[in-house]
Amino acid sequence: MDDNAIRELLDRVLAPWVRALALTPVKVDDESATLRLPFSGELRHSGGVICGQVFMAAADTAMIVAISAALGGFKPMTTVSLNISFMKAVRKGDVLVTARVLRLGRNLVFGEVELFDEDGRLAVHATTTYALLD
Amino acid sequence: MDDNAIRELLDRVLAPWVRALALTPVKVDDESATLRLPFSGELRHSGGVICGQVFMAAADTAMIVAISAALGGFKPMTTVSLNISFMKAVRKGDVLVTARVLRLGRNLVFGEVELFDEDGRLAVHATTTYALLD
Amino acid sequence: MDDNAIRELLDRVLAPWVRALALTPVKVDDESATLRLPFSGELRHSGGVICGQVFMAAADTAMIVAISAALGGFKPMTTVSLNISFMKAVRKGDVLVTARVLRLGRNLVFGEVELFDEDGRLAVHATTTYALLD
Amino acid sequence: MDDNAIRELLDRVLAPWVRALALTPVKVDDESATLRLPFSGELRHSGGVICGQVFMAAADTAMIVAISAALGGFKPMTTVSLNISFMKAVRKGDVLVTARVLRLGRNLVFGEVELFDEDGRLAVHATTTYALLD
Repeated sequence: MDDNAIRELLDRVLAPWVRALALTPVKVDDESATLRLPFSGELRHSGGVICGQVFMAAADTAMIVAISAALGGFKPMTTVSLNISFMKAVRKGDVLVTARVLRLGRNLVFGEVELFDEDGRLAVHATTTYALLD
Repeated sequence: MDDNAIRELLDRVLAPWVRALALTPVKVDDESATLRLPFSGELRHSGGVICGQVFMAAADTAMIVAISAALGGFKPMTTVSLNISFMKAVRKGDVLVTARVLRLGRNLVFGEVELFDEDGRLAVHATTTYALLD
Repeated sequence: MDDNAIRELLDRVLAPWVRALALTPVKVDDESATLRLPFSGELRHSGGVICGQVFMAAADTAMIVAISAALGGFKPMTTVSLNISFMKAVRKGDVLVTARVLRLGRNLVFGEVELFDEDGRLAVHATTTYALLD
Repeated sequence: MDDNAIRELLDRVLAPWVRALALTPVKVDDESATLRLPFSGELRHSGGVICGQVFMAAADTAMIVAISAALGGFKPMTTVSLNISFMKAVRKGDVLVTARVLRLGRNLVFGEVELFDEDGRLAVHATTTYALLD
């Protein structure tokens, strides 16, 4: 899937509330998908850091893109579970979100997502399980 | 904390992007916090169901309220991890989000969140760990 | 399933290494399964507390019993994921392990496990996802 | 820490029940720890595959070694949480367990563990959080 296909997927599939995060593709291939989460003051809670909810949404979205790329196109799927760890606070700057498929089973897909701050440090880590519907 | 205190907390603490979910307190005491997530088409992805990202954000927010209530007021804290399982799709209707503190330690707080659809069925389940800052 | 059926299941299904934990049924019905983990010095690490590995194994085992009871008998299944939080150290005494099925789907089963120390305090909490094979 | 120090750590720290797994160091440095889990029929459940409980125990143990190596020696710590996904069944052969520290904070340590079957395929993935005690 090329950049245009990914942008079209994000526009078409995401809920409007998630689309407001303005995630854009940076690099997507069969192995992984990297999206950019552009910084915005709207994403910070009163403590001045980007809130966890934003990173969860970004991680889930990046994984949907990674699975779609691995499958050669978006197919209906549902998130079974997502586990996320917040390791470092992010005060500013764009965040890069890289999702990788760990195992593409017939029914279940396992994945891992890493979120890096503008200095390239790992700030957030997530693992995910999806069920493919048919 | 009474309803007004909770509303004030939600207004003051949440990132604007999360505030857009319009979560409102239903019942909050020392043991648990229940918030209402009002239905909106903005929350549904292309499959016509409320997207997982919304439930993650609602779960995290409800737990912050529950911990604040258990502590007698909001204190700076950070989400260490959140694990969420999506058990049943929700197509429509308000969702009730109930967060309970399982253990309030000196540094770490463990909690559990249940999300119920409009028919009272458990649709989503989450567990959380927070670190209290000081 | 009655106590004898549960004991027979534990004897037949468990790996010998897990059987060494000597888990025994306390109360099992369609809703939940409670097993007793008898205390033994073999279970404590050098810090003098029961090690986390024991609780993970006990939680997984109790959930297999709970699902079997809900299904009316053991059926082949595989653990998809298990998330466990250690909230309180346990130095001594038997531990009660209660597993509940949260949702019994056609393919996936979601569950929750609570482990209580001899004073009845919640020490460990786990959530699980299993896939039913056929 | 050299091989002898790791073997001594495993002998001294682990509960006897976990020591029975006979985990041995393969390669340990500041970045990661790889242990070998030798195959044994004692580890298989009635379905003929190594049971999940074994992999959980191995993952937790490998991470304790990795953190100790990163700290330059074992220090008292407690597992806060462990999330594990079982992606592929393992019927036979030794399993290599590689634990990496993702972030070594002042109080909390985040890590990731991968378990590979004898053909080098990723079979199990875990993430962990530990609290350093002092």
